Formats: sequence, C-alpha cells, structure tokens
Amino acid sequence: MAKTGFISKEQLKSNINALKSFMKSKKLDSFYISSADIFLNEYVPLEDCHRYYVSGFTGSTAELIVPVEGKAILFVDGRYYEQADLEIDPSLVHVFKVPYGTGLRQAMREVITAKNFKHMGVEGDRIELSLYNDFGTMLKILPFNNSELSKVLEFKTLSVEKKLHEIPLSLVGESTKSKLARIVKPGEAFFVSALDSIAWLTNMRRYEMPNQSTFRAKALLINERVYLLMENVEGDIKNESVEINVGKFSELEKFLNLISEYEQEWLSKAGVKAPKIEKVFYSSNSTNAADFLKLGAHFGEEKLVNKPEGLVPFHSLKNKAELEAMLDSFNNGDKAIFETISWVKESVKNGVKFSELDFYNKTNEFYQKNGALEQSFNTISAIGANASIMHFSSPSADVMCEPDQLLLLDSGGYFESGYATDTTRSFLSGGTANARQKEMYTLVLKSILAVQNAVFPDGSWGSVVDGVARQPIFKAGFNYNHGTGHGVGINVHEGGFRLSTTSNIPLRENVVGSIEPGIYIPGFGGVRLENVAVVERHPEHKSMLHFRTMVYIGFDHDMINFDMLSEEEENWLENYEQECAKRGRSFKYTKK
Amino acid sequence: MAKTGFISKEQLKSNINALKSFMKSKKLDSFYISSADIFLNEYVPLEDCHRYYVSGFTGSTAELIVPVEGKAILFVDGRYYEQADLEIDPSLVHVFKVPYGTGLRQAMREVITAKNFKHMGVEGDRIELSLYNDFGTMLKILPFNNSELSKVLEFKTLSVEKKLHEIPLSLVGESTKSKLARIVKPGEAFFVSALDSIAWLTNMRRYEMPNQSTFRAKALLINERVYLLMENVEGDIKNESVEINVGKFSELEKFLNLISEYEQEWLSKAGVKAPKIEKVFYSSNSTNAADFLKLGAHFGEEKLVNKPEGLVPFHSLKNKAELEAMLDSFNNGDKAIFETISWVKESVKNGVKFSELDFYNKTNEFYQKNGALEQSFNTISAIGANASIMHFSSPSADVMCEPDQLLLLDSGGYFESGYATDTTRSFLSGGTANARQKEMYTLVLKSILAVQNAVFPDGSWGSVVDGVARQPIFKAGFNYNHGTGHGVGINVHEGGFRLSTTSNIPLRENVVGSIEPGIYIPGFGGVRLENVAVVERHPEHKSMLHFRTMVYIGFDHDMINFDMLSEEEENWLENYEQECAKRGRSFKYTKK
Repeated sequence: MAKTGFISKEQLKSNINALKSFMKSKKLDSFYISSADIFLNEYVPLEDCHRYYVSGFTGSTAELIVPVEGKAILFVDGRYYEQADLEIDPSLVHVFKVPYGTGLRQAMREVITAKNFKHMGVEGDRIELSLYNDFGTMLKILPFNNSELSKVLEFKTLSVEKKLHEIPLSLVGESTKSKLARIVKPGEAFFVSALDSIAWLTNMRRYEMPNQSTFRAKALLINERVYLLMENVEGDIKNESVEINVGKFSELEKFLNLISEYEQEWLSKAGVKAPKIEKVFYSSNSTNAADFLKLGAHFGEEKLVNKPEGLVPFHSLKNKAELEAMLDSFNNGDKAIFETISWVKESVKNGVKFSELDFYNKTNEFYQKNGALEQSFNTISAIGANASIMHFSSPSADVMCEPDQLLLLDSGGYFESGYATDTTRSFLSGGTANARQKEMYTLVLKSILAVQNAVFPDGSWGSVVDGVARQPIFKAGFNYNHGTGHGVGINVHEGGFRLSTTSNIPLRENVVGSIEPGIYIPGFGGVRLENVAVVERHPEHKSMLHFRTMVYIGFDHDMINFDMLSEEEENWLENYEQECAKRGRSFKYTKK
Repeated sequence: MAKTGFISKEQLKSNINALKSFMKSKKLDSFYISSADIFLNEYVPLEDCHRYYVSGFTGSTAELIVPVEGKAILFVDGRYYEQADLEIDPSLVHVFKVPYGTGLRQAMREVITAKNFKHMGVEGDRIELSLYNDFGTMLKILPFNNSELSKVLEFKTLSVEKKLHEIPLSLVGESTKSKLARIVKPGEAFFVSALDSIAWLTNMRRYEMPNQSTFRAKALLINERVYLLMENVEGDIKNESVEINVGKFSELEKFLNLISEYEQEWLSKAGVKAPKIEKVFYSSNSTNAADFLKLGAHFGEEKLVNKPEGLVPFHSLKNKAELEAMLDSFNNGDKAIFETISWVKESVKNGVKFSELDFYNKTNEFYQKNGALEQSFNTISAIGANASIMHFSSPSADVMCEPDQLLLLDSGGYFESGYATDTTRSFLSGGTANARQKEMYTLVLKSILAVQNAVFPDGSWGSVVDGVARQPIFKAGFNYNHGTGHGVGINVHEGGFRLSTTSNIPLRENVVGSIEPGIYIPGFGGVRLENVAVVERHPEHKSMLHFRTMVYIGFDHDMINFDMLSEEEENWLENYEQECAKRGRSFKYTKK
C-alpha cells in the first residue's frame, strides 16, 4: 500500500503547539526538524520521521523550520510541489516551494536571515554535521537529544523482526577483510553510520525497514575488524571480520569504550604491540552532530579527520560480481515490469476494468512472483493526470484505467543479492495516443537516448551529461524539475554518481546510476523513462567512457513519433529492442 | 610581428642564477613567478612579464616555480604543450604539462607538497591575493616588492605614448555616473585594479599596451566619483565623474591619503556631512597581495569586503548600445577575415606564392584597412601542421602555402568603441580536401552548431553547454585540451562567461562569449572554428536562453562532409550562409 499518514489534523495541531511551548521554555525562536533518522537515512519509515509529526507531510525529502510564532515552514523542491499542496493544511504549515536550481538548504538559510532567527533548536542526532556547522555560522544552535523531545512529542518506535543474513561472496565479490584493508591502515579508525555503507562493508542485509535491504547499526572500523553497535540482533554471523555489540544507539560512548577494551584484549592475546589509534575518519555528510561530539570527546577532536564522502568512493565503484548480481536483479525486476505493463494492456484490450490501486498492487505482486524480497521504494503507479506528480504515492481505488491513457510505472525491487533495482516506463493503456502524448513521450525518449549515446572522458562532471540529456527537451520548451540521474547500489539512491544541472561529481568507470528524464504537465499527465546503466569504457574510443544499460524493457512503439528521431537514435533503439526481444520483453516493435 | 623573445640563453641562465643567489640570501627554498603584471592583467607585454625573464617562455599563460636547487618548473596547460616544447631549454627549465581537467594552481600545489617547500618568495604586487592566501595555508610566503627584485634581475619598463580618449555615450550606453550609482552607495568604496573594469567604468580607452584598449591605472570608487591613480597622463578628460591623480603605482598609500583629503574638501564645499567610508570592496581575484595589505593598513582590515568577481558582474552584462557597438566591430573584423581568406584562396588559385608570415601580415593589413586601431590579440595564422599548435605565435617566412592545405586564422581587432573582436576560421588553401581534413572540419563544425542550436534555462552552468559542444567530437574519439568559450568584452578574455568542462559560471542574458571547439593532431594540423555570440532570450521558448551569433563569415563548403550533418545542423547552416551572403561574406556555399 502507498505510504499513508496516521496523524489527524487535531494531533498535528497539538504537536505543533507542544513543540512551540517547549521552544518557549527553552527560549528558542525556531526549531529545525529534518526528515532524517539518526542514521541520516534517506528513506525513513514514516513512524520514524519526526518531520511528519510536526508537518503532516509524507514525502520523503523535505525540511521543516518551526518558528515560535506563526506557521511552520515546510521546504520542498519541484518533485514535491504538487504532493505538498495536496497534503498540507495551509492553516498550520506554509509550503515554501524552493525553485529549480536552488537547494533546500539555501532556501532555509534565506528564511533564517529574513526572519532574523537567533536561537534555533535542533535534534542533535537527526541533523547532518555539515548542516549543523553551517547553521552554526548563522545563529546559535541548541541540540536536544531524543529523550528530551520524546517528552514533548509522542513518537512511535520501529520494531525489528527480521534476521540478519549474509550474502555469498559470489554475489558481492569481495570479503569484509579485503574491503577493510583498502579503507583503514593500522592506527586508523573509521566511524560509519551510513546504513548502505555498513551493509556493503559487512556483506550483510536485513530488510528491517520498508524498501531497504540494510540494517540499523553504527560501525567503527579498525584495522581488520568492523565493530557494530546494534539494538536488536539475532542469528549467528560467520563473517570473522565482524564483531557485533548490543547496546543503545544513543549510548555511543559505551560502545567506543567497549571497543577500546576489546582491542586491548585482542591485541594482547595476539601478542602484538597495540597500534594506538591516531586518526579517526568520519563523514560530515553522513554523521549526525551528536555522534560527532561523542567521537570528539572519546578520541580527542584533533584526531578526527573528515572524509565527506565516507565509504561512498569505495562502494559506488562496483566490482564484476556486483555488476553481475545487479544485472541479474534487473533481469528479474524487468520481468515484473514487463508483465505488469502487458497485464495493463491486455486488460484494457479485453475491457477488464481495474483501478490505479489495482495497478499498484499488481506491480508488487509481479515483483514477488519474480523473486523480489522487497520493493526498493514505494512503487509509483499513476494513471493519466496523476503521472504529473513526480513522486506520486497515493494510487486510488476510484481512478479507473481507460483506453488512450498514459500510465507511469516507476518501481524497483530487492532480489537475492540485496542490491536495489529502479526502472520507469510510461506507456499507453491501449487505443491510440494523441499527438501531445506522443510528443511528450518521444522527447523524453530522445533525452534518454542522448545519454545512452553520450561519450565522455573519465571524470566528466555529472552536469555535462545532464546538459546533454536535457537538450531535446529544452528545444521543445520543456524542462523537468529534478535531476537526470542518481547512483544505484544497496540503497536505491546511492552517492558517488549524480546527473543534475549542478552536479560536479565526476563520472567514473564502474559507477551505476539512473538516467531518468521526464516531462510533467499538471492536470494532463507525465512521462518519465528510466534506465539504470553502468559507466564503462567505450568499446571503440578507449580514452572515453559511456553508459551500458542494465535495463532491458522495450519502449512503447505506440507512443513514438519516429519523425522526431535522428538516425543515431533510431539505430540505438533498433538494437535495444532486439536485445529486449531476445529476453522476451519487447512490445511488438514496429516502425510506424 | 609575432611575439618574439629578446632574452638569450646566456641571459636566461644568468637570470636564473641571480634569482637563486637572491633566494639563498633570503633563505628561500622556492620562488613563485607569475605571468601577471601588477594589474594581474592577462595579456602582459613580454617586457613586463617577469616569468619570461626567468623561463624564456613567451606564451601568455603559464606559472613558474624556481626551486633553490634544480631546474625551474614551468606549468602549462594543453594549449601550450607544443609551444613550451619548442621554446624551452630543457637543461634549464622543466616543463610540467598539466593534464586536461587539472588546473595550473592544483598542479603547483602538488609540486609544493611533493618537494616539501617551506619558504617561498613571491612578488607581492604580481600575485593574486587569492593565490597568496592559498599558498599561505601550505607554506611560509615572503612577499618582495618590485624594487627589491629589480636589483637582482634587470627588467625593461613600458613606455606610454598614447593619449587617453573617451568613448561617446552612444557607443557605451551608460555614463560613469550612472554605473557608479549601481555599484557603490554612500559610505561604500570599491578598489579596482582590473584594467578592463576601469576602462568600462570610465568609458575611456588608451591602447597603451599591445592588443589592449585599456590603460594602466588603479581606481578607488566612492559614491559619485572614480579616483584614478595613473603614472602617465595627457589630455583633458571631460568625464566629470573621473578624477585623475598622478603618482607611482607602488605608492598606493599616498593615493589613498590624497583621496581622503579630496573627499573632505569636496564634502565641506558641498556643505554635506561626510559619510564615513564603512565598507571597502575589493576582489581577491583581481587585487594583488601588496595592494590588499596597503588597503588594510589604510582603511582597517575589518572594513574590507571581498567581492571575488569585482566589477565583472556589471560589465559582463552588455547593454543595447554596447551590443550594437560590438556587432559593428565584428562586422569590420569579419570583413578583414573574409578578405584575408579570399586573398589566400585567390593567390593559391593563381599560383602566387606566399609564406605563413605573409599570411600573418596580410591579416593585420586587412584589419587596418577595415578600421582596426589595434589587433585584440596576436594574430594566429598557421599553415598545415602548425595549426595543431593552439596558440601558434611564430608564423614563418619559410613555410610556404601550397594547395590542399588546411589553414587556421584566429584574429580579432579593436575598432572605434574599444571592444575586442575574436573570430577563428579554418579553411582550405585551395585544391581538394582529403577525407581526414574533411572529417576534422565537419566534427568541429558540428560542435559549434551544437552550441548555436543549444537551448538552456537562465543560470545554466557553462559546463552544461561545454558538454553539448563536445559530444560530436567525443563520439569520434577526439577531444580538445581547452575550454569551449570565454567571455569577450573590452578585453578579448572577459570574466562572467566560461564554457568549459569545469565551469560553474551561470549563463545569463546579455553576456557575450566565444564558441570555439577544435581538433588538433600534432604533425598533421588543426581545425578551430570560433563564433562570438550573445546569450539572449529564446525567440520561441521565453523561459529559455540561446546564443545569437555576432560573427557572420561563411564556413568553407569545400571542407564539409554533408553526410555527417543532421537536418537541424543543415538548417542552421543554410540560414547562416544566407545571412553571410547578404553581408557579402559567404564562400559560394553549395551542398556537396
């Protein structure tokens, strides 16, 4: 089922008031509430998303500042404009629609300056260190911990039932021990709380939160061992490089003290002279402010060394086994999508009625049938005008599918290896596409083909490929308010890869990411097409890189205006459809 | 004549040794020598380029670090690889060929780290403040002034003969007074030493250095007046907002004291209560370190506010009159280029022999004939393999032009309004182009057309358009080791516009810049095509921008492989050639 809220308007009002009373008692003029959990995880279950409790907004990315007087301010970017309008009660919360090209943080900074805030409360364990430091240059920041705020607002807690399991080496290609040797040298430690980094490093998965194969843990990496702090553990772990410690996440100090003891014991047993820890790496982007302060208190701040990217530079570059495993996952996911689209087209052809919600449920069913352990994000299944909502998350039982309609299906799953898949296809329900639908579809297709055909040197900025992607769409006067692509790994959004108008992230061989341009016309509909691809060496021009698709699902030939395609585009498409057909996933591709 | 050196190998050797002795006496392990003059000007006459005295390299962009032991290290980027090889004596100077994508500064930082330098000398008035600060984080920097170094090395001085003259308002579109009102408010001052900014602000030109319409001055802007510090002044200036002070550039302190006196006097005469200067803006990119220290001593460092871009955000956006004046300049420059190319083709056709040097001289002659007061940079006229040297500056009397040869002509001039022009055409001398020549030419043409046809939203990064430009060239496995475009204004290289792989400079309406992709094959030849264009609103898609060319010189139809062009490209070209033909500057354009 789509993510639905559990907070009534009355509860929301009372939550906001309770927070404001708390703020008054602490002499705060503002309070920042992030969407993040204590792991600064992107996809946080609604129960653990404190921002939801004080805004009522269910979207996954948004920022909230609550002034002590006046309405709370919710910051959303273009992907969430429509959703915010639908969900937000304007009498309680003001929606700040951050324009294209401006970051949410920049918008918050502007509001802080304009409103002249002086004392801002934050949840210390739910704010990125880098943002904490940034705000700190503007005004006085007072961090509060979870137990303090829990006295004011009643938060739900997550239950964990699933068992931790290990992924065979054949699927991940490298042992924890070998990974560790690349990351830390004797005398160095690395504090990691990014869940995908921990799952990658330990070669373990748990699926304890919806749409994520990861498990909640904090990790300290030392020489040949990973020490994990976890609250719920079950099952035997055979990975000799992993040492699990049970404790409360908020009690990081205890964990660090324990490790010091372990290390001494282990080293004295081994008869080795203890290499003192001289450097502790952390990432200012994925460490919360509270943990950073605790690390500093334990090790001494002078030993802390910021590596903003954390372990991302390691796990964003995929090895051969991982690429194989991902390709296998995509093969399964592609089947589910192809079967869903075929089911839609068949049903419409045969006059079988079904709703948007049926379409949603059917997608997830097909994923399960093809071996998915979990969806990698909440399936977006939209009919007609709803497809213009980029992250549409409320498929309706009342919206029925008719012929001549444009549908959008953005979905992904987790299969055996625990790597996410992510694919989008827009398609016609049946009947005949009109010229406007065809133009939209063909422009987006041209955009994805521009990237599939793009050639670029190692290290080219993501903005460069983003620019190439958007040209066909710009030339028709359209644009889309989101990036062209994100990295894909254990999380469906992984760092180390970004195609966007302002991405200076270099493109490297063996990174995996999405290519997903779109056109959205509110009230009319939306088209998005998404292939995930790996960056590899160009077969002919060895000094260059290009994208090799990992997705093979044919495009909808009823939607293509072939007059708009160049020869290069037609050639790529023809070859691609042949590859899809080999896999039984082409929709009877015929030119016009 | 092309820039030629005046330093013998013996002099060079003795200069390096003299500097090293000086370094030893000052206990320095390294000395940084920039290519800049005290105005941090890009095009410095060789006589005033101290880097030349210690390296023998005549190219305009390069950095030099002289270690107290071992060879001097010259840092050059891809544009100068070949030229450095030709000019540098490897027994005295090591050429560090900085790879594509790495900046010269980054390379210097790496060398400083690798060589573990601890005490570096610099010329305080010839180093950018930002670089001075940057180096300062790595090692101890000791600034020396001009008179100290002049005792060690014998530098030539520039003589100034030309008269300062004012440009009529009809050509520049805005008075100094009006510009000032947009830049500083009462109580604010702006220190400016960027010569193009001063020329723009004062609406004056002087042509006192080769290839530049500017004049040497330092300026302090206060409320309604520009105070100029100049060493040589002649002629009456009618501009009431400009107040000229005669003094030595190195005696900035005296100038600042004088202004304080003037201001008091002026204000008391006017019966106005003196608005004390509370803020002094400066640009860390265009202020030398010595001047910054003097400003701090005079005003108090706490009053100094860095505006890294200086006045560039003002003068990079052209007004209507300026665009008209520039278009008029290009019209004259284009005539000169067209006449030169026609002269080449005619001569070859008639069997008239001429050399590369004749080609060079003829170009400049045609510029003069068409009203040029000066070339805006040293004309690049290359025949055959020499065209692969991007900034070729030594046209030879011994290289004769033959049929079937590819020539490259990159030239520009200053006309009445004192704005630079800049245009490049590669073309066939006569006879028949071979397939390789045609492929190179057509790929570069496709690249320029990709930019001419590009559509993008306001504020798009330069890297985005750069990526669009390079696609046709990348797809054929080529690349070029330079940016795709630079801003054009009073200086032929102006800030506020840059198309390059790593440009995050936003594209704005009314900026003017070059589009100049190329392909260079050492030993074979090079193709570069360059139009200068203004960024303007797209005629059809009002939310978008695009480039409108300011250059109208037909392309060489003998060089185009029309099979390689898309319909969009052919359409643009057809229309362009018609516009060129209207102006009498199309080369009998026929398809195949």
